[in-house]
Amino acid sequence: MKVRLEPAPVRGFRFAGVCAGLRSEPGRKDLGLIAADWPVTTVGVFTTNRVKAAPVVVSQERVRRGQLQAVTANSGSANCFTGKAGLKLANDSAAAVARAIGCSPELVAPCSTGVIGRTYDLAKYRAGVAEAVTALAPDRFEDFARAIMTTDTHPKIASAMVRLSGAEVTIAGCAKGAGMIEPKMATMLAFVMTDAAVKPPTLRRTLARALPQSFNAITVDGDMSTNDTLLLMASGAAGNRTLAGRDLAAFEAAVAEVSSALAHELVRDGEGATKLVTVEVRGARTHADADRVARQIANSPLVKTAFFGCDPNFGRILMAAGKAGVALDLDRIEVSLGGIRLASRGALHTNALEAAAVRMKEAEFALTIDLKLGKASAKIVTCDLSFDYVKINAEYTT
Amino acid sequence: MKVRLEPAPVRGFRFAGVCAGLRSEPGRKDLGLIAADWPVTTVGVFTTNRVKAAPVVVSQERVRRGQLQAVTANSGSANCFTGKAGLKLANDSAAAVARAIGCSPELVAPCSTGVIGRTYDLAKYRAGVAEAVTALAPDRFEDFARAIMTTDTHPKIASAMVRLSGAEVTIAGCAKGAGMIEPKMATMLAFVMTDAAVKPPTLRRTLARALPQSFNAITVDGDMSTNDTLLLMASGAAGNRTLAGRDLAAFEAAVAEVSSALAHELVRDGEGATKLVTVEVRGARTHADADRVARQIANSPLVKTAFFGCDPNFGRILMAAGKAGVALDLDRIEVSLGGIRLASRGALHTNALEAAAVRMKEAEFALTIDLKLGKASAKIVTCDLSFDYVKINAEYTT
Repeated sequence: MKVRLEPAPVRGFRFAGVCAGLRSEPGRKDLGLIAADWPVTTVGVFTTNRVKAAPVVVSQERVRRGQLQAVTANSGSANCFTGKAGLKLANDSAAAVARAIGCSPELVAPCSTGVIGRTYDLAKYRAGVAEAVTALAPDRFEDFARAIMTTDTHPKIASAMVRLSGAEVTIAGCAKGAGMIEPKMATMLAFVMTDAAVKPPTLRRTLARALPQSFNAITVDGDMSTNDTLLLMASGAAGNRTLAGRDLAAFEAAVAEVSSALAHELVRDGEGATKLVTVEVRGARTHADADRVARQIANSPLVKTAFFGCDPNFGRILMAAGKAGVALDLDRIEVSLGGIRLASRGALHTNALEAAAVRMKEAEFALTIDLKLGKASAKIVTCDLSFDYVKINAEYTT
Repeated sequence: MKVRLEPAPVRGFRFAGVCAGLRSEPGRKDLGLIAADWPVTTVGVFTTNRVKAAPVVVSQERVRRGQLQAVTANSGSANCFTGKAGLKLANDSAAAVARAIGCSPELVAPCSTGVIGRTYDLAKYRAGVAEAVTALAPDRFEDFARAIMTTDTHPKIASAMVRLSGAEVTIAGCAKGAGMIEPKMATMLAFVMTDAAVKPPTLRRTLARALPQSFNAITVDGDMSTNDTLLLMASGAAGNRTLAGRDLAAFEAAVAEVSSALAHELVRDGEGATKLVTVEVRGARTHADADRVARQIANSPLVKTAFFGCDPNFGRILMAAGKAGVALDLDRIEVSLGGIRLASRGALHTNALEAAAVRMKEAEFALTIDLKLGKASAKIVTCDLSFDYVKINAEYTT
C-alpha cells in the first residue's frame, strides 16, 4: 500500500468547493461540501479547548449518533464566540444543505474556520450551498480541500488503496490548518473518507488508533484551535466482507497512514515553516515521559529558531528536555541530529557540530534523544520558527 | 520608598567586573565578583529544570547553610552538561576566589551563564579573579552587572532605600537574562544585596514572598534555563534593630519591589522585545486557575506575534485562555486591552478594535481578562514575539 498526496475517488461520496463570497478576497473558494449518496457510518474527534466554536458544538452532537450524509465547511469565519446567534447560524447552515440534498438536518455536520468572534452572511451561504450542490462530483475533492484553506499555502490531500476482504478499498482525506496547531485531539479541520464497509465500533477504534501517531503527534506552535474537527466517514460502497483479522489490521494501517500523511502535510505547510523535524524520544521509562520530553523540545521557541538557523544548538535541546520534569541521567543521554551523534556519555561532541549544521539545511531531518532509562518512545513532528511565522502572524488581520 | 533603576552602595559589599578572556568577543567583561566584608546571611532559589548546571549544584549546596562571603559569576559558558569535570571546575573557580579574598571555599557561590556543553579556561578564570579582587569597590556594581550579560542589551540594576527599625537600609540588585526565561523558580542570574540585619528565617520568608510577584511572574519565551539562580544577601551593616511588625513589612515590600523592577527589566530587554504586556486574569475561581490562563496567554506565540503586530486579535486571546483547561463562561468573560473593552456578555466589540490597535503601539500596556467566576486573580508580565527574536536566536552560535 502506498499513500499518495493526491485525490482519489471514493465510491459513495461527491465533493464541491465554491466561492460563496464569505471571505474578503474576491474569487477565493470559501464553501466546501461533502455529500454521501446515503447516510454513512461516521466517527469524529473535536477540539478539547474549553472554548468551542458553534459548529463544533453542533457537529459533535450529530456525530455522536454515528451517521452523517453531508459535511459543509466554510473558511473566512470560525463562527466562534458568537453566542446563540452563532449556534443558530450553524444550525441554519446545515439545514440549508439538508434541504438542498434532501436529507434530515441531523445528518449534516457544519464546520467553520477563520476569524474568531464574527459570524458570516447566511444568505450568501445559502446561495453558495445551492451552487455547491449543483457542482457536486466524485472528482471535485480538491475543490473542497481548497475551499477550507485559510493561511494554508496549498490544499492537503492524501489517498491510498488497499485490497482487503474481497474488495478494493479506497481511503482519501484532506486537511487544513497552518497555525493554532497542537491538536491533542484533532487538527483544525480534517476529513477522511473511505468506501469500505465498516461497523461503527470498528470505525471508532480505527480512528482511536490512527490519532496518536498522526494528528496528535504534530505541533506547529503549541496553540490549540477552538474549531478542531476530524471526521472519518465510511460509505460501504466497496462491498467488502466484514473486516477482521489481518484485513482489519491492513485497513487500520491504511487509515493511519493517510492520516499521518495529512498531519505531516500540515506541519510542512506550518506558518512560515521551512523545515519538518521529527523529534523522537527513545529509552524513556514510560510513553508519557517520552511524549512530554518530545513535546517540550518540539514546542520550544529557542529550539525552533535554532532549527531555522541550521544551528545544532545542543544546549537548547537539553534545556527543553530538562524542563519536561522527567528524570534524566546526563551521563547516559544520547542526542543525534540527522543521524549525527551530538552528545553521549555526558559529553558534547563539538567536532560533530559542523556536520550536523550541514544536515540541518535539508528540508526534513530527525532529532533523536535516547534517555537510556527504559524502553518507551514517542515521536512528535514539528517545524521551525522563522521570520515568516512572525510576518504571517503579526500581519494577519482580526 | 522609590525604586530606582540605578546602583546604590550597600554597606558591607564590594563589587567588580573584569574581562578575563572567557568570551570570544575581545574586551568584553565576562567575570563578576561580589565580596562581602564578612560572612553574610544568604538565601537563594535555583532552577527547577531537571538539567542543572554544575555551578547550580555547587551553589545550591552552599547556600543551604545560610551564609556566603562571595559570589563569582562568569558569562560565556554555562558550565552545564560538563560532567565531573564541570563540577570540579565550579569548585576550583570558587576556591580561587576563596584564596584571593581569604575565606573558606564553602562561603563562595560560583555562577555561570552562556553556552551549554562547554567549560571555560581555569587559568584565565584565576587570572581574572586576581584582577577582580584588586578592583573590588563599593561603587563597581554596574561592572559586575555588565560582566554577567549574554544577549542582554544593557545591565539591569534596581535599588531602593527605606528607613526602618532605627536605620537607613539599602537594597540593591542586578539581574541578567533575555532568553530562556520562564523561571518558575528564579530567573537566570539575579543578585539582591541589602545592608539590613535580617535573621535567616526572616530573609527566607522575605524571598518567598517576593518571588511570586517578581521573577516567577514573568515570561519571555516559556523556556527555563538550566542555570537559574537568585541570591538574596544581607550584610547587617545598617545596624537596624530586629525587624518586626510594620518595619518588617516595609522591608519585605522593598525587597519585593526591587525584585519586581529587576524582573520587569528582564522582560523589557527580552530577546527582540518591543513591548511589555501585563496579562492580568481576574474573577477566577482559584489563583491556580487565574495563573494557568494568564500563562497560556502570555506564552502563546500567536498572541505574542499579535502584540508585535499591534493587532488586537481577540480570537487568539480567547483560544489561549480556552486551552488552559480552566472552565470558562463565554457569556460572562470580559476582555480589555489597554483599558479598552474588546469583548463582554458574549459579544466581540468590533468597533473598539481600532482604538485598541492604537493603544497597542505604546511600549507598555495591560491585557485584562475577567472570567467573572470568582475572586482570584494573577498577573504575568510578558513581551511580544518579533522578527528580532527569530534573528537573535537563529543566529546565536553554539
